[in-house]
Amino acid sequence: MKTLQEVDDVVLDFSRQQRIGLPEAVLCEGKTAPQLVRILQLCEQNKTAMLLTRLSSEAFRLLPGKWKKSLDFDPVSRTAFFRKPQMAAGVSRVAIVSAGSSDTRVVLECQRTLAFAEHPCTVIQDVGVAGLWRLQKRLKEIAAHPIVIVVAGMDAALPSVVGGLVAGALIGVPTSTGYGVATGGHTALHSMLASCAQGIAVMNIDNGYGAACSALRMLNSFERLR
Amino acid sequence: MKTLQEVDDVVLDFSRQQRIGLPEAVLCEGKTAPQLVRILQLCEQNKTAMLLTRLSSEAFRLLPGKWKKSLDFDPVSRTAFFRKPQMAAGVSRVAIVSAGSSDTRVVLECQRTLAFAEHPCTVIQDVGVAGLWRLQKRLKEIAAHPIVIVVAGMDAALPSVVGGLVAGALIGVPTSTGYGVATGGHTALHSMLASCAQGIAVMNIDNGYGAACSALRMLNSFERLR
Amino acid sequence: MKTLQEVDDVVLDFSRQQRIGLPEAVLCEGKTAPQLVRILQLCEQNKTAMLLTRLSSEAFRLLPGKWKKSLDFDPVSRTAFFRKPQMAAGVSRVAIVSAGSSDTRVVLECQRTLAFAEHPCTVIQDVGVAGLWRLQKRLKEIAAHPIVIVVAGMDAALPSVVGGLVAGALIGVPTSTGYGVATGGHTALHSMLASCAQGIAVMNIDNGYGAACSALRMLNSFERLR
Amino acid sequence: MKTLQEVDDVVLDFSRQQRIGLPEAVLCEGKTAPQLVRILQLCEQNKTAMLLTRLSSEAFRLLPGKWKKSLDFDPVSRTAFFRKPQMAAGVSRVAIVSAGSSDTRVVLECQRTLAFAEHPCTVIQDVGVAGLWRLQKRLKEIAAHPIVIVVAGMDAALPSVVGGLVAGALIGVPTSTGYGVATGGHTALHSMLASCAQGIAVMNIDNGYGAACSALRMLNSFERLR
Amino acid sequence: MKTLQEVDDVVLDFSRQQRIGLPEAVLCEGKTAPQLVRILQLCEQNKTAMLLTRLSSEAFRLLPGKWKKSLDFDPVSRTAFFRKPQMAAGVSRVAIVSAGSSDTRVVLECQRTLAFAEHPCTVIQDVGVAGLWRLQKRLKEIAAHPIVIVVAGMDAALPSVVGGLVAGALIGVPTSTGYGVATGGHTALHSMLASCAQGIAVMNIDNGYGAACSALRMLNSFERLR
Amino acid sequence: MKTLQEVDDVVLDFSRQQRIGLPEAVLCEGKTAPQLVRILQLCEQNKTAMLLTRLSSEAFRLLPGKWKKSLDFDPVSRTAFFRKPQMAAGVSRVAIVSAGSSDTRVVLECQRTLAFAEHPCTVIQDVGVAGLWRLQKRLKEIAAHPIVIVVAGMDAALPSVVGGLVAGALIGVPTSTGYGVATGGHTALHSMLASCAQGIAVMNIDNGYGAACSALRMLNSFERLR
Amino acid sequence: MKTLQEVDDVVLDFSRQQRIGLPEAVLCEGKTAPQLVRILQLCEQNKTAMLLTRLSSEAFRLLPGKWKKSLDFDPVSRTAFFRKPQMAAGVSRVAIVSAGSSDTRVVLECQRTLAFAEHPCTVIQDVGVAGLWRLQKRLKEIAAHPIVIVVAGMDAALPSVVGGLVAGALIGVPTSTGYGVATGGHTALHSMLASCAQGIAVMNIDNGYGAACSALRMLNSFERLR
Amino acid sequence: MKTLQEVDDVVLDFSRQQRIGLPEAVLCEGKTAPQLVRILQLCEQNKTAMLLTRLSSEAFRLLPGKWKKSLDFDPVSRTAFFRKPQMAAGVSRVAIVSAGSSDTRVVLECQRTLAFAEHPCTVIQDVGVAGLWRLQKRLKEIAAHPIVIVVAGMDAALPSVVGGLVAGALIGVPTSTGYGVATGGHTALHSMLASCAQGIAVMNIDNGYGAACSALRMLNSFERLR
Repeated sequence: MKTLQEVDDVVLDFSRQQRIGLPEAVLCEGKTAPQLVRILQLCEQNKTAMLLTRLSSEAFRLLPGKWKKSLDFDPVSRTAFFRKPQMAAGVSRVAIVSAGSSDTRVVLECQRTLAFAEHPCTVIQDVGVAGLWRLQKRLKEIAAHPIVIVVAGMDAALPSVVGGLVAGALIGVPTSTGYGVATGGHTALHSMLASCAQGIAVMNIDNGYGAACSALRMLNSFERLR
Repeated sequence: MKTLQEVDDVVLDFSRQQRIGLPEAVLCEGKTAPQLVRILQLCEQNKTAMLLTRLSSEAFRLLPGKWKKSLDFDPVSRTAFFRKPQMAAGVSRVAIVSAGSSDTRVVLECQRTLAFAEHPCTVIQDVGVAGLWRLQKRLKEIAAHPIVIVVAGMDAALPSVVGGLVAGALIGVPTSTGYGVATGGHTALHSMLASCAQGIAVMNIDNGYGAACSALRMLNSFERLR
Repeated sequence: MKTLQEVDDVVLDFSRQQRIGLPEAVLCEGKTAPQLVRILQLCEQNKTAMLLTRLSSEAFRLLPGKWKKSLDFDPVSRTAFFRKPQMAAGVSRVAIVSAGSSDTRVVLECQRTLAFAEHPCTVIQDVGVAGLWRLQKRLKEIAAHPIVIVVAGMDAALPSVVGGLVAGALIGVPTSTGYGVATGGHTALHSMLASCAQGIAVMNIDNGYGAACSALRMLNSFERLR
Repeated sequence: MKTLQEVDDVVLDFSRQQRIGLPEAVLCEGKTAPQLVRILQLCEQNKTAMLLTRLSSEAFRLLPGKWKKSLDFDPVSRTAFFRKPQMAAGVSRVAIVSAGSSDTRVVLECQRTLAFAEHPCTVIQDVGVAGLWRLQKRLKEIAAHPIVIVVAGMDAALPSVVGGLVAGALIGVPTSTGYGVATGGHTALHSMLASCAQGIAVMNIDNGYGAACSALRMLNSFERLR
Repeated sequence: MKTLQEVDDVVLDFSRQQRIGLPEAVLCEGKTAPQLVRILQLCEQNKTAMLLTRLSSEAFRLLPGKWKKSLDFDPVSRTAFFRKPQMAAGVSRVAIVSAGSSDTRVVLECQRTLAFAEHPCTVIQDVGVAGLWRLQKRLKEIAAHPIVIVVAGMDAALPSVVGGLVAGALIGVPTSTGYGVATGGHTALHSMLASCAQGIAVMNIDNGYGAACSALRMLNSFERLR
Repeated sequence: MKTLQEVDDVVLDFSRQQRIGLPEAVLCEGKTAPQLVRILQLCEQNKTAMLLTRLSSEAFRLLPGKWKKSLDFDPVSRTAFFRKPQMAAGVSRVAIVSAGSSDTRVVLECQRTLAFAEHPCTVIQDVGVAGLWRLQKRLKEIAAHPIVIVVAGMDAALPSVVGGLVAGALIGVPTSTGYGVATGGHTALHSMLASCAQGIAVMNIDNGYGAACSALRMLNSFERLR
Repeated sequence: MKTLQEVDDVVLDFSRQQRIGLPEAVLCEGKTAPQLVRILQLCEQNKTAMLLTRLSSEAFRLLPGKWKKSLDFDPVSRTAFFRKPQMAAGVSRVAIVSAGSSDTRVVLECQRTLAFAEHPCTVIQDVGVAGLWRLQKRLKEIAAHPIVIVVAGMDAALPSVVGGLVAGALIGVPTSTGYGVATGGHTALHSMLASCAQGIAVMNIDNGYGAACSALRMLNSFERLR
Repeated sequence: MKTLQEVDDVVLDFSRQQRIGLPEAVLCEGKTAPQLVRILQLCEQNKTAMLLTRLSSEAFRLLPGKWKKSLDFDPVSRTAFFRKPQMAAGVSRVAIVSAGSSDTRVVLECQRTLAFAEHPCTVIQDVGVAGLWRLQKRLKEIAAHPIVIVVAGMDAALPSVVGGLVAGALIGVPTSTGYGVATGGHTALHSMLASCAQGIAVMNIDNGYGAACSALRMLNSFERLR
């Protein structure tokens, strides 16, 4: 019988950027260290940059030193860049707004995915509605962006309030912040889906990467329509 | 074998008002018309007033004419008074605030329970946060009440915003308004329980009666402490 | 005590179009006929058009004749227009793609909301992946739109396949089509949220209206960026 | 790209005490050690006391020595006081009643939150209804308090029995004590929400902090009404 | 192809009484009128009595007149006897205790199943713990029975209190009485399963028939051990 | 705007039989009468037979007389044949085994789908394990079939017992028979998926049509391998 | 403020044995080591035996040496006896039957609780229905006991088969054995509650202790009736 | 009282291969090391080969050295062979197709179970539909197998697409790959059960072993029909 190492278990989609304008990325959760090494080897051979998501500090630690050094790794967002992209200058078209500082890990996953695609963005954190003055102080700045990503856990009331005040495209990212009925983020998810504000498009729980991709799809369309 | 009519299946708690200061009430859902008649007969014999809740128009229609006439029935809130109490004058200490006009049936159940206990209250409807100006316009009036009951369905973002702006006792009542993930009111319930605003005490879904009882308990304590 | 008719239970948000570029709409589910009439009266006084959603044939039938006649009502999508808008000519920027013909009611709710906002759109139905040739035949046409709304029930595999082939902004609408584990649409919802394709933004189950609003938010931003 | 340390991710609500009469508190779960340090630094600069909740022994251990020493930390309730308040003398207006000794961690979170707000309270533990004599022995003492907080896990039958015997304001806190269907505390939560006793207002699972805040809101209103 | 009428779709278990001492019974829910007629014909041919459960008034109405007349039908418990048994005299060894009068339909299903097996029982209704005096008044009578069946919906606190006071075998039957989180009876079921009182054995929601069978199994064992 | 009738909302997959050896079928649930007529018209134009599933008696009644007459409709299984196939003679290779007579509607949906594909089958009903002798009496007959489909609701213990005694391919179909925790069929579904017997492949709840298709796939492979 | 050690948080129910014939027991899960020590001290002062349940090896390890030595601890069942009872001789009236060897921990919790109450029992393990011969070989022995406790996880088909073959009192204990849909034991629980066999009374998941208490209640009643 | 070691808690089903053509296997999860040793001793005495599933690296490590050496252990699939079978040559009749490389552990469990039963198979990994070209490249090869097992997590769209293109018997295995709504694999399970493609038979989450057994049942029937 073939051993795991001999099995051909990784097929990378190097044409994705060209086909749909989104960068190739790899979800590391559930993958073994040998699988991750094979993926990085394929990228190296192919001279391609790669975004790694859900790479825990533990999984990063298990990589061989050579590959560890090749990565720009951020432990809070659990993301890594293979072949770091040039940071984009220019106008920020995306605002990432969060309800609390416990949402930082999701905010950073989103920000770093946009950065990997060479898009700058504006980050405005800890402006949840329990202290409404925090949001009101930053509202004009938020509303100036054509795309607003709202990251919130627990009751996720923030996107409903933002949605009633801001005209641009709105993406909600529920987080698994909280305990009791908030555990796992399902309350935040359902709250966003059932929002009394119109036209909030919602991502999976903690999916900052997906929110960035949704924003990239819109930015692609903006470019095309110019 | 005994028939249903012979079975002694109703034991009313006529000492409740005296014991814990709350009016005797009967949940009509799941009770047959003969059971409801036996309950009203017991009240008549005992010269006691009685609040009936969850009395559907259909169940009301099935009561004998004599008993129908004896009731002050409201089809929207599905409540009825047996022996209508005198309406209370005096200062309103309870504000009932709702997010949308679909919540009216719960608002009225709450208002009528307070009325049955001879307490006036202030009703402020349709001030959900998707149009924040609606709440801001009424905020001062709401904050003037020592007890605020917030009724909301769907994402139930309203109590979180109110909770951050108002200092008094706060009771949340989730409603089953909405569809998809909002069906049945579980999203509103969980959203209130996980609220980022502090100290919101929550009732069962659609339980306007319970919210009124919770307010009555507080009013009882207020009286005692004077 | 005040009767229901005297209670001031409706506060319309006539500034919404101006504030966030979305048309005022009313969710009719859970509202009584007198409440709906009061809403239409307010619109008439205000000379405003209004979109009614989730208006069942039964609820429509219960309206007084005068108000019935004032509405352009569609029983399949359960929508009605008060003061019918002019139909938009011009280029279609939104494609609505559905998996099966059982999804028609949601497709039409979406299409009619866009129409009410005077935006044309392209409708491509019954191209689910069990017969992949149906999608492949229409793929080029779909990909030509900057915004693609995918409507699907049951396993909702369609948005994942479309998401891997199309570069534009992508909105998923799960439907409650199906039985057993598909009942209520939760499987379709979760499938879209967990899609292996990147950047699909998801709406509440059966929320064709919300998908249209999300598209309108993007179109608003497109306009602003020109 | 900015590093995490440079990001401005904490916005404290120092006006909360003044605005709604509740102390500023920070939920530590999900926050990194550097974030907690930044929060304590802001409090120190601002000369403000702060209540930390859900601070695990592990998270406490990761704080720098200087900040560890500045805190009055209790590992059972996972709370810490920055700038310890003076303990309140005077009459206890709040009774905290628990069903079993496994609920102690929630009882203490509640007690310490009240203490931080300088309110004394009375704690009566392990009086669950399986041995009804335990409750009956303490009933008169409990009933003497205008506010009663009942903490219970598993089937949470205690608040229903207390609710039928005590007239004051009643707050239920379900706990995650138990296994099988009781795991996570959802059975206790639902049992309290569906209680056959009237007017029990319910908090999120294990939310002793929230119960204290709800009591503080009532005490604020009591003060105002005097 | 064979039509439904020709298919041999009913196989009755006439040896059950002899094998395990429980009467043959038929769950009518989901069966067509022709199937029910075939079952009754088989009983008639076999000269066997039969208990029908979950026979709705509507399903009863659809039976041919001859078969309707052959049945002792009770619409509240939805049970019918084919070949009515002799009513048992003698000592009652089973007490059926219910929390509220909305539980009557389940109480009667239980009582009639015992009656069909020729066992008398004692019924004590509407003694829920919100008015604890009601239970205390009947406690001695309840405790005198070796088997106690407790029927309760909503929070189902009654069995926990009874379980702490009564020494005999204890069977809990949750009912689907209630709304919101109590809908469907899952809260009552979970509350009984997680009871703080020891040794409560629990049946499916609304399963009065099953509770009677459980009691019959115990009575069978009692007989054997004498 | 286009009316519903003008929208091109049905795309039939007439190449399915040729492509994957399964007959074209239409799920009628959620489709309007005009949509069903358009489907039948397309079949007539194409001279194709068609299987209709989930066609309720009510939906059948709403079809125009011409189309009603064209169908071989069975109300119990809610299936209809357009262009009735010739009944297959020959050896039966599929046994359909059910636990109770309430499962008949699903058994017939399965049987009629096989019949539509011109495969005979053997039906053995009401042999649930509560009376194990019923199964033992028919076991040899069941085991003689290379494919066994087991249909069961409630606890679905039958497939586990059959799975331990029979060597052939085994397909489980959970049904929504039952009440309380069995409501909707999820207990039966989960019980089959978690079966202690090896190699039971499971279909969606009540999906007799799908079980027949799974059997047809196997029969196709059998043919190919000969 | 009082420290945890000063709080009077344990109230033991030493009259339970006398009141309802069940031994005092303590659920150790969720209790701190100091709380457990206080409990054991109270037992020592009171010269009472005590059963400890859910005492993990880790929690046992954290007890002071003196108390560790005073306990008869079994790590598989996680139970401990303080003041070991004399082992009962005499006839076994309870059979504990399990489906698989993974259920041993629950079987032993049940067996040791009965032993603590000085009742012998018969244990028959690993006779699940996937190999029906295993059960058939032991059936006569099982049926000879007036009380049969069936312990099973995953699909829990065993109690349904036993229930159809055995006449005595039947108690089902679902276990959390299994993965996927079986995780946590909810499938086994629901399967037992929805069993097609009559009169199976069910305990909480993994609650071997409760099953023993239910059997003890029956044995108490047997004694009384002699 | 008997100790655990003395209890006769393992009854192996050595006749299974002969009775239903499937190899004896042992689920190791929940079993103690002494139990596993007893099982291996019984196999040695009986000169039988044995497949061990769900044997974690930790549980393997705890086995005595002699038994560790006797096993062919694979840590990724968590399977071990006692008495390694000869590897089968000959034609592969089963294709195992996976959506992503995170599904490898389930693919290998399936492959090794088939290998243990001496059946070769073809493994095609990482061909999920987000990059449809990956599947299209391998489609002809997949379709050449009479049995196709599809392993997929998250939205599990792959089996729906394969099911529309391939005629053979189709078995779906959902995996617990993913986060948020995908956690635990329920979304993948429900998606497969509700697939728009016909005749996909589904296994429990992560049950690669069961999928292999289902394929073995089909292969047994193929043999018989030749």
